Amino acid sequence: MDTLTIYLAGEIHSGWRDELRRELTSRGLPVRFVGPQEEHDRSDDIGEAILGKQPDARYRDLMGARANTLRTRVLLRRADLVVAYFGTEYRQWNTAADAGAAIAAGIPLLLVRQPELTHALKELDALATMTVETLAQAAEAIAYIFE
Amino acid sequence: MDTLTIYLAGEIHSGWRDELRRELTSRGLPVRFVGPQEEHDRSDDIGEAILGKQPDARYRDLMGARANTLRTRVLLRRADLVVAYFGTEYRQWNTAADAGAAIAAGIPLLLVRQPELTHALKELDALATMTVETLAQAAEAIAYIFE
Amino acid sequence: MDTLTIYLAGEIHSGWRDELRRELTSRGLPVRFVGPQEEHDRSDDIGEAILGKQPDARYRDLMGARANTLRTRVLLRRADLVVAYFGTEYRQWNTAADAGAAIAAGIPLLLVRQPELTHALKELDALATMTVETLAQAAEAIAYIFE
Amino acid sequence: MDTLTIYLAGEIHSGWRDELRRELTSRGLPVRFVGPQEEHDRSDDIGEAILGKQPDARYRDLMGARANTLRTRVLLRRADLVVAYFGTEYRQWNTAADAGAAIAAGIPLLLVRQPELTHALKELDALATMTVETLAQAAEAIAYIFE
Amino acid sequence: MDTLTIYLAGEIHSGWRDELRRELTSRGLPVRFVGPQEEHDRSDDIGEAILGKQPDARYRDLMGARANTLRTRVLLRRADLVVAYFGTEYRQWNTAADAGAAIAAGIPLLLVRQPELTHALKELDALATMTVETLAQAAEAIAYIFE
Amino acid sequence: MDTLTIYLAGEIHSGWRDELRRELTSRGLPVRFVGPQEEHDRSDDIGEAILGKQPDARYRDLMGARANTLRTRVLLRRADLVVAYFGTEYRQWNTAADAGAAIAAGIPLLLVRQPELTHALKELDALATMTVETLAQAAEAIAYIFE
Amino acid sequence: MDTLTIYLAGEIHSGWRDELRRELTSRGLPVRFVGPQEEHDRSDDIGEAILGKQPDARYRDLMGARANTLRTRVLLRRADLVVAYFGTEYRQWNTAADAGAAIAAGIPLLLVRQPELTHALKELDALATMTVETLAQAAEAIAYIFE
Amino acid sequence: MDTLTIYLAGEIHSGWRDELRRELTSRGLPVRFVGPQEEHDRSDDIGEAILGKQPDARYRDLMGARANTLRTRVLLRRADLVVAYFGTEYRQWNTAADAGAAIAAGIPLLLVRQPELTHALKELDALATMTVETLAQAAEAIAYIFE
Repeated sequence: MDTLTIYLAGEIHSGWRDELRRELTSRGLPVRFVGPQEEHDRSDDIGEAILGKQPDARYRDLMGARANTLRTRVLLRRADLVVAYFGTEYRQWNTAADAGAAIAAGIPLLLVRQPELTHALKELDALATMTVETLAQAAEAIAYIFE
Repeated sequence: MDTLTIYLAGEIHSGWRDELRRELTSRGLPVRFVGPQEEHDRSDDIGEAILGKQPDARYRDLMGARANTLRTRVLLRRADLVVAYFGTEYRQWNTAADAGAAIAAGIPLLLVRQPELTHALKELDALATMTVETLAQAAEAIAYIFE
Repeated sequence: MDTLTIYLAGEIHSGWRDELRRELTSRGLPVRFVGPQEEHDRSDDIGEAILGKQPDARYRDLMGARANTLRTRVLLRRADLVVAYFGTEYRQWNTAADAGAAIAAGIPLLLVRQPELTHALKELDALATMTVETLAQAAEAIAYIFE
Repeated sequence: MDTLTIYLAGEIHSGWRDELRRELTSRGLPVRFVGPQEEHDRSDDIGEAILGKQPDARYRDLMGARANTLRTRVLLRRADLVVAYFGTEYRQWNTAADAGAAIAAGIPLLLVRQPELTHALKELDALATMTVETLAQAAEAIAYIFE
Repeated sequence: MDTLTIYLAGEIHSGWRDELRRELTSRGLPVRFVGPQEEHDRSDDIGEAILGKQPDARYRDLMGARANTLRTRVLLRRADLVVAYFGTEYRQWNTAADAGAAIAAGIPLLLVRQPELTHALKELDALATMTVETLAQAAEAIAYIFE
Repeated sequence: MDTLTIYLAGEIHSGWRDELRRELTSRGLPVRFVGPQEEHDRSDDIGEAILGKQPDARYRDLMGARANTLRTRVLLRRADLVVAYFGTEYRQWNTAADAGAAIAAGIPLLLVRQPELTHALKELDALATMTVETLAQAAEAIAYIFE
Repeated sequence: MDTLTIYLAGEIHSGWRDELRRELTSRGLPVRFVGPQEEHDRSDDIGEAILGKQPDARYRDLMGARANTLRTRVLLRRADLVVAYFGTEYRQWNTAADAGAAIAAGIPLLLVRQPELTHALKELDALATMTVETLAQAAEAIAYIFE
Repeated sequence: MDTLTIYLAGEIHSGWRDELRRELTSRGLPVRFVGPQEEHDRSDDIGEAILGKQPDARYRDLMGARANTLRTRVLLRRADLVVAYFGTEYRQWNTAADAGAAIAAGIPLLLVRQPELTHALKELDALATMTVETLAQAAEAIAYIFE
């Protein structure tokens, strides 16, 4: 089968993307990964890096988010599959928004959430195409697409 | 103008919906409100209330969420406007998912988030049609549609 | 809330629709029901009733199905919710096709299937917005939309 | 012409896919085939294979179906054509659901159904882009696209 | 059931619309009819009637057609059903274009064509939701929607 | 016919809307008008009126525009027809953006542009459903929809 | 630029396609052509060639048209541009239906019609992205896309 | 990542496209550029170049615009990203229309507008995915997509 493009929605503080990438590439699957900027500072600074100093924190954030949104919307439109990962540490509302957008756009959604989050994420669980609890399970589910 | 149907996405623990409803109906605006079940226990129990005892917490949550999703998807399809409210206390990932779905479906989104959440919600701020910080501001923005 | 229009997909041999209608109207819910022609002979004969005798059974069926499809597509486009009921006796492939069409069109789907059909209908269960096993449960789920 | 991607919806118990593949590849047509998992046990076990033992048969089936759905939705989105095959032995409701989804998504549908099923499948016959009775006919119809 | 809005596509020279309207209103069905301008001269003159004399016949026609298109697109967007009538006398290419647009937009299409046109209209027959040969049959088919 | 909802896109400095409204209501046509805020100062101040003083002119404008966009997107989604008026005095880029959005959304567009603007607006002329030069002509074209 | 896929809708009796192909390939433009079956007898016989003798002419035509529709819908979904050619000799209603479908699907439409057909095709002229009178003009218009 | 196709909407009088192309290709980014015809006279003459002398300026413009629209609609459908550039000198209403169409079609929009235009373009600023003031900033924003 052709290469699958997988959008990796989720927090950018931990190394979960590397782990999932390792899991999948080690299986030799033809997957390409896209997703939000993973360097946290770069992601926060990008608005002012492009547009210069903003008058206050609110606009620094808004301009940074617009730059990140330009990036992620272009990439999301090309995705065959969205993986949304939720850890316990961060609120990651943009992950949930990306998940909602994927569902509304008819892009299959694979939700990865730790057991402690079962209750907090039950609505996304109900909307997701499939839900798993670990990245190893996510890798197995994605590998299954190629069987 | 005809009645506007407003979907109120957000936490169901606090009284923010009543406050917004009061703000708008006191102005005599022809608005109808829809949204998730606001009785918290009812919302959590609905799956088992309909389907009977589930084998464990995960499936109790999943079945409850499916019942709530049936409800909210029917209502969301009729909304002219989605108001997504974020307070500091709860993670409300389903609120973010509803917001993402509204954006993807082309339903205008009014984001209400307290100043402390500016950074955490910057991506939704960038995607929202408009963002405000208080319910009074939200009411003014909605009232403006009728001017 | 306004009246909900509910499309009742499913076999037309048994009285399940009357039972569901009774359940819902007895609760005084503002629901309107649409769906396939429920008089079986009328449904089978309609093609020849309109177009006259067809050369053979295949075309008698095709012309009857086209007349029924004209009817159901007009009605399905107006539905807020699709209820798909599966009993054990009939194959009801058009029920499954209507369910698939509803999902693809973003119309919420409430699946009603007897426990014996759990395995045979597992894919539709995964695609449905919610799945229940009895008409009483279906009525509760629909009533919940109005709470 | 470029390669056509054909989604083969239908039962996974018999060898109909191999037969159709043989028919088409023997003609040297540039076709790529996608579809549901064809190893029956693998398809039934996949949910627990990924997520571990589930509390009961219902959830074993639901989780297996979600894994299969993740797989099939990714593949269906890339299809140029859906072939839906119905034999007399199985109920294959998910085949009908895939067919309905294809129609609703505007993907052309080629229905293959044995003559005995003419009446039971008349609605799908009316909705299909074309209906044939044998795999040899299906292969001819697909080959015709390349003429 | 609510009123159905039926768009009557087809030639405007003969009285077929009146005949169909009579057939349906005599049955007391809640139908509303929309469609192209039926006064032939008015339809041909409307461009210059609004915009003044055009430099030549081509632009007189184009401007008239744009005025008629403004009218028909507004009306077509509200239709529950499109009836496309073909008689033997006129080429009625815009009828076929309206039919194609209805199909592509997912609006059910009822094709009415005289037997002599079977071969010439076979592709539209294949695309239509249903095809009949007389206005009386068309009225029966529409009445069937209300049964 | 039911009431038509007409979105009036265009400059808010001149009285063109009143003129068009007069033209149409004097004919007793069942039309409802929606569109941008027509009080210029109110439109420019609305962002700060709701959100309070902004750090600089750029953000004052952006916040005002978001409030106006919330308003216009809600209204545009309900329009049966968009009238886009261009006078010679203002650049009215948002009028052109509304026109482009209407075309992309399949809402018929009636373009009103003074003869001096023929060249500058030729691309919109090509995209519009119909183009006229005066408000009296626009009123005639809209009245024609009701004939 | 990448190769453009051009769907050639129109009569299959004359050699207009060869002429247009010659015009374009002689310019060395990267275009690929798709369209209906051009061998007239093959196109008329295909239904019975695949399905066997049909009971009468009507069903022979319907089955042939379904086979052709399967072919053309697969091809039309991949087109970047639709060229619809109308000569004076044939009624070519399926050409008009393809044109209407292209417009409704947002695929740009280049209409080629001889001057004698100006009046008969005025509505399609108004709906087309561009209209020309000769194949040489059509080739120039397509070549312009690559400039 | 694969090549991104960027549609460059904006005036064709100045050399802004060359500047942006230089900025991006000098960074070795895999981008392909499409957009309107950049030779001004060619763009204005194309209608008559293809169709011959038109009766007056209005139709010369309309036919030219239709030829340009055929070109730009084909190209816009393939774009991953639309850059809309506004300078102070020209009204560029078609740029705004392209921007509106991109937004309505869900194609991310990067708005480039000089500071003097902040007020005039505030609505597009609110609708754009991101807004910058210089081409160097636009290049940085696009480059960020590839990081």
